[in-house]
Amino acid sequence: MNDRMFDRVALIGIGLIGSSLARALRRDSPATAITACARRPETLETVRRLALADRTTDDPAKAVLGADLVVIATPLSAYAEIGQRIGRGLKDDAILTDVGSVKEAVIRDLQPHVPARVHFVPGHPIAGTEHSGPESGFAELFRDRWCVLTPLPETASEAVADVRRMWEGFGMRVVTMSADHHDKVLAMTSHLPHLIAYTIVGTATNLEESLKSEVIEFSASGFRDFTRIAASDPVMWRDIFLNNREAVLEILQRFSEDLTALQRAIRWGEGDKLQELFTRTRAIRRSIIEAKQA
Amino acid sequence: MNDRMFDRVALIGIGLIGSSLARALRRDSPATAITACARRPETLETVRRLALADRTTDDPAKAVLGADLVVIATPLSAYAEIGQRIGRGLKDDAILTDVGSVKEAVIRDLQPHVPARVHFVPGHPIAGTEHSGPESGFAELFRDRWCVLTPLPETASEAVADVRRMWEGFGMRVVTMSADHHDKVLAMTSHLPHLIAYTIVGTATNLEESLKSEVIEFSASGFRDFTRIAASDPVMWRDIFLNNREAVLEILQRFSEDLTALQRAIRWGEGDKLQELFTRTRAIRRSIIEAKQA
Repeated sequence: MNDRMFDRVALIGIGLIGSSLARALRRDSPATAITACARRPETLETVRRLALADRTTDDPAKAVLGADLVVIATPLSAYAEIGQRIGRGLKDDAILTDVGSVKEAVIRDLQPHVPARVHFVPGHPIAGTEHSGPESGFAELFRDRWCVLTPLPETASEAVADVRRMWEGFGMRVVTMSADHHDKVLAMTSHLPHLIAYTIVGTATNLEESLKSEVIEFSASGFRDFTRIAASDPVMWRDIFLNNREAVLEILQRFSEDLTALQRAIRWGEGDKLQELFTRTRAIRRSIIEAKQA
Repeated sequence: MNDRMFDRVALIGIGLIGSSLARALRRDSPATAITACARRPETLETVRRLALADRTTDDPAKAVLGADLVVIATPLSAYAEIGQRIGRGLKDDAILTDVGSVKEAVIRDLQPHVPARVHFVPGHPIAGTEHSGPESGFAELFRDRWCVLTPLPETASEAVADVRRMWEGFGMRVVTMSADHHDKVLAMTSHLPHLIAYTIVGTATNLEESLKSEVIEFSASGFRDFTRIAASDPVMWRDIFLNNREAVLEILQRFSEDLTALQRAIRWGEGDKLQELFTRTRAIRRSIIEAKQA
């Protein structure tokens, strides 16, 4: 990455994604001055200990002063207030972007606070682990992952190109699409799988004690994959479901219908129906392996 | 493993598990004579090409002649007929075991055909991958995995000990429990997760084409883990659901109730309920990591 691209970057929120971005910037663009903003003193203390930023503050309004690039990387429920607090302080021609897993709600919450002299490029680097917090980040988190940008019709294409170049510099494959389409795709690929994983692990926690201990012991038989997903950050995921409600409920409805059909096939011993579906799902796995995502 | 433990082993069915067992026997007990039995000529041809057995046959009745240990490793739907065909040919004091993922149905299907002079030790080595067929097996498949034996009250303890010793020799941790309890535990840890994974991948295959291609591209965000599970052998899984119907329907009912509660919380914006569950599920992940299954 050209290390003069952004002279000054403000990271509002510095958990897994924010701190990974800080690390990637430190590595590839050492001349960039980083300001990290977080609400909790412990988080800022960790940021200082790990030397992830040049300046730290708990005030978003101060954090963005003079920044060429502002990246919001908090849970979605904090966006509206952050927008309100930073809007007027954003510098002329600054770029405002974010890393939120939902995009229509982000535009709804931030757009009203973004002055016309600022370039708003909503974004979603699709990367993460089941761990959270600034200690969990690493610069290579973004390597070979997708990043979706959902610019508005009025967004300057140069600003989109600058954000794209940054994520590409960290190894991401960047695509643009509408916020609405993004939210539907992610409802299927990410939000529903997480909801299901949380549910199934929740169902297990409600089992009688005698069963529960063995469920943990024998988890390797399939359940374990779900527990990894269901260990993801609770506040972040609460906010995702509340902010992508329509798309999640729509896809969840389809899933429930499909599950009910399978339930019925099991109850009535309709082996052909089961086998037909189980054969069909193999094909999707093959497509994914061919798309090199496996 | 003491290489005189079993002089002659018959493997009825030689897919992922059967062929892994053949490889483990070859490695640790080279003096043991292995007979492999499969229905399809292509499978037997593969077994010969890979030198996984000393003799091959498509006739279970012939396969078991003279065998000290008979291991059934076919899909569950084949058990009843195999039992019928091998029962009379089993040698005095032979041990009959299996690797099926359901145990009550196995006892129901096999027990009537097992002569009193034969020791029946139903078993379930909990190991596998999403791949199937004799080419997919490997001797190390069993290492550090659990194996559940569900002997009947009348089963001779020496026979149970012999089967236990074999699986332990291949690196498994062996426990015994009742067939009923096994089927309930596995319904939660394995059968329900597979059913859910098949369903969610099925839901994705029914999406409009424009969404579907992107679901594949962005699968790394959670969905991918489900596709791996949903690539498992269709016939084997059809049989598991048909043969563990009661336990699967019971746990599926609980899951559906929990999912409906979450759906309602999303619809009504009840963030506290979501966050509470998402926090609770993290604890299960920690238990699993402590139990060294992650």
